[in-house]
Amino acid sequence: MKAVIYGGKGKINVENIDEPKLRNDTDVLVRVKAASICGTDVRLYWGTMNDMFGYEAGDAMGHEFAGVVEEVGKAVHNFKKGQRVVSPFSTHCGHCYYCERDHITHCEKLTAFGLGKHWGSLGGGQAELVCVPNADRTLLALDDRVSDEHATVLPDVLTGVFASFEGMRGGSSVAILGCGPVGLASVMCARLLGAGPIFAIDHHENRLAIAAKLGAIPINFDQQDPVDAVKSQTGGRGADIATDTVGKIGSVNLAYPLVRPRGVLKMLGYIDPKEQIPIGPASLAHITLEPCLVPPIRRYQPRVMKLIADGKLDPTPLLSHTMPLSEAPLAYKMMGERLDGAIKIVLKP
Amino acid sequence: MKAVIYGGKGKINVENIDEPKLRNDTDVLVRVKAASICGTDVRLYWGTMNDMFGYEAGDAMGHEFAGVVEEVGKAVHNFKKGQRVVSPFSTHCGHCYYCERDHITHCEKLTAFGLGKHWGSLGGGQAELVCVPNADRTLLALDDRVSDEHATVLPDVLTGVFASFEGMRGGSSVAILGCGPVGLASVMCARLLGAGPIFAIDHHENRLAIAAKLGAIPINFDQQDPVDAVKSQTGGRGADIATDTVGKIGSVNLAYPLVRPRGVLKMLGYIDPKEQIPIGPASLAHITLEPCLVPPIRRYQPRVMKLIADGKLDPTPLLSHTMPLSEAPLAYKMMGERLDGAIKIVLKP
Repeated sequence: MKAVIYGGKGKINVENIDEPKLRNDTDVLVRVKAASICGTDVRLYWGTMNDMFGYEAGDAMGHEFAGVVEEVGKAVHNFKKGQRVVSPFSTHCGHCYYCERDHITHCEKLTAFGLGKHWGSLGGGQAELVCVPNADRTLLALDDRVSDEHATVLPDVLTGVFASFEGMRGGSSVAILGCGPVGLASVMCARLLGAGPIFAIDHHENRLAIAAKLGAIPINFDQQDPVDAVKSQTGGRGADIATDTVGKIGSVNLAYPLVRPRGVLKMLGYIDPKEQIPIGPASLAHITLEPCLVPPIRRYQPRVMKLIADGKLDPTPLLSHTMPLSEAPLAYKMMGERLDGAIKIVLKP
Repeated sequence: MKAVIYGGKGKINVENIDEPKLRNDTDVLVRVKAASICGTDVRLYWGTMNDMFGYEAGDAMGHEFAGVVEEVGKAVHNFKKGQRVVSPFSTHCGHCYYCERDHITHCEKLTAFGLGKHWGSLGGGQAELVCVPNADRTLLALDDRVSDEHATVLPDVLTGVFASFEGMRGGSSVAILGCGPVGLASVMCARLLGAGPIFAIDHHENRLAIAAKLGAIPINFDQQDPVDAVKSQTGGRGADIATDTVGKIGSVNLAYPLVRPRGVLKMLGYIDPKEQIPIGPASLAHITLEPCLVPPIRRYQPRVMKLIADGKLDPTPLLSHTMPLSEAPLAYKMMGERLDGAIKIVLKP
């Protein structure tokens, strides 16, 4: 079968590899109908977090996929051949210390698709077939009203962002740094959950234009000071919530002063462990610093799926291109270099 | 009347100053029966945060006090002369952006007792009389079962710590760095709310001994690595919650690696705005960094008062000495230099 394989820094290959087989009676084989490319995949493509993940040339790519059940292990009760399904990016055991506390993406036995050997070397979702372990716990039956392409935002990006906004008060002001897929999904979720004003901060005009269409106030940080812009529209206070979706120390430091006292700085991107931020400004002002990178996705999938099916969340603006799986090398180049207005690209085997 | 007055770095005077008078019809005059010394007072005494507070020689000291109503403004409805009362350390307007969200200690018109001109230059609680503004909103009638001395933990230290532990799951493991008044209050509150194991980390043996009596596992960081000690007793994970009660960057950095993935690092001390901490370790591990320095004390006073009255929280171990107000210079020296086992000292006018 065809699969997207990492070929070393900046190199993606579509290779013919052996088809996966059921390894355990609790596995399900899924024929992939659509798989999208995540910002984490782009980081792996550029080689920036590969050491940490144990990710090497020859490893499989992709953890955002939806498809149809092809084969079912003997001990699987909830799924049948031919059924449409979507997977979260990871599996969990269900009974460790973390699973008991609903921190299932910090499961002690967590494995993940296409993310390298530290995460169990599961096959990649950017392939024709994927073997899904512990399928009764992992998979979710897909609502017929949700397309395969739209379903690819359920394993990670839109569920993760939705989770990060849960519990937000309606009427909260939100400043979002970065208008890539996570940033635009943040605008969508904040709006759905009653936030306003929502500030979208970036310096790519095409992305700011999409954010504006989704209801955000666009701020180009090359043209104006985002702190001034946000404070002048929030009674001089700053936003109730600032969300960094870029995951660089520079963007976190840009987002930090956007938060009002007693507000929350959410960090949706992965930040290098060596990076430091001043902690003092959080002290008297009681600014909570909240990482939100891998919330328990699986718990949020049914709700987010229903919101998509009911037309309350529309993934269309996040998915800029759909391309055949065979064009994965070009798709990675487009996302990695932000060519042709690429936001998030869906690959179809 | 006699009042404790700051005399410059490391100097405390007991001076005769004019008695305060009612300034508004909503004020109440309180005759102080007991006032305790806060860690913040000690920082002001050493001059380490005075610039930030606009705190200068000649300013009043003390924000933890209880007493008896002496005189009542015409527009005060809830209090009568002779009634026992306790005040929070600060006043709030009740209708600004922050008050509406229950962030009353970040009120846009917040004033505080004995903390200098940036906080409205209210009189100090370490005095014979204090004028309490907006008394119907500020003051709380004191339960007869709570002594004046015990009441002095209600304006700040014990209420603040209690607030920081609210919402904690019963059975959580808690690592507390520092066994001063805030640290010991943390042991008390964590235990009351069902935590366990509770680790108390310090290097003063007398303080560790008190923490152990209160039910904590004492760890002397001069004798063993606290990270090893906590991890070895929490299945290798680290504690669900780590609380820094010292408020120095070194103590925060010591507390940080004590937290397990998806845990919380609570910061109960004020940290210098210039100080930095690594933010990366919080990222994939989802460690929330939560400052808890000035929660909305007033909201917690009735509950904490009832817990003291019912014997469920006993402030005795926090209050090491009771001394006459006239001995305030010695009391500050004892607390500032940790002499004679001083934890927290109550002054009696």
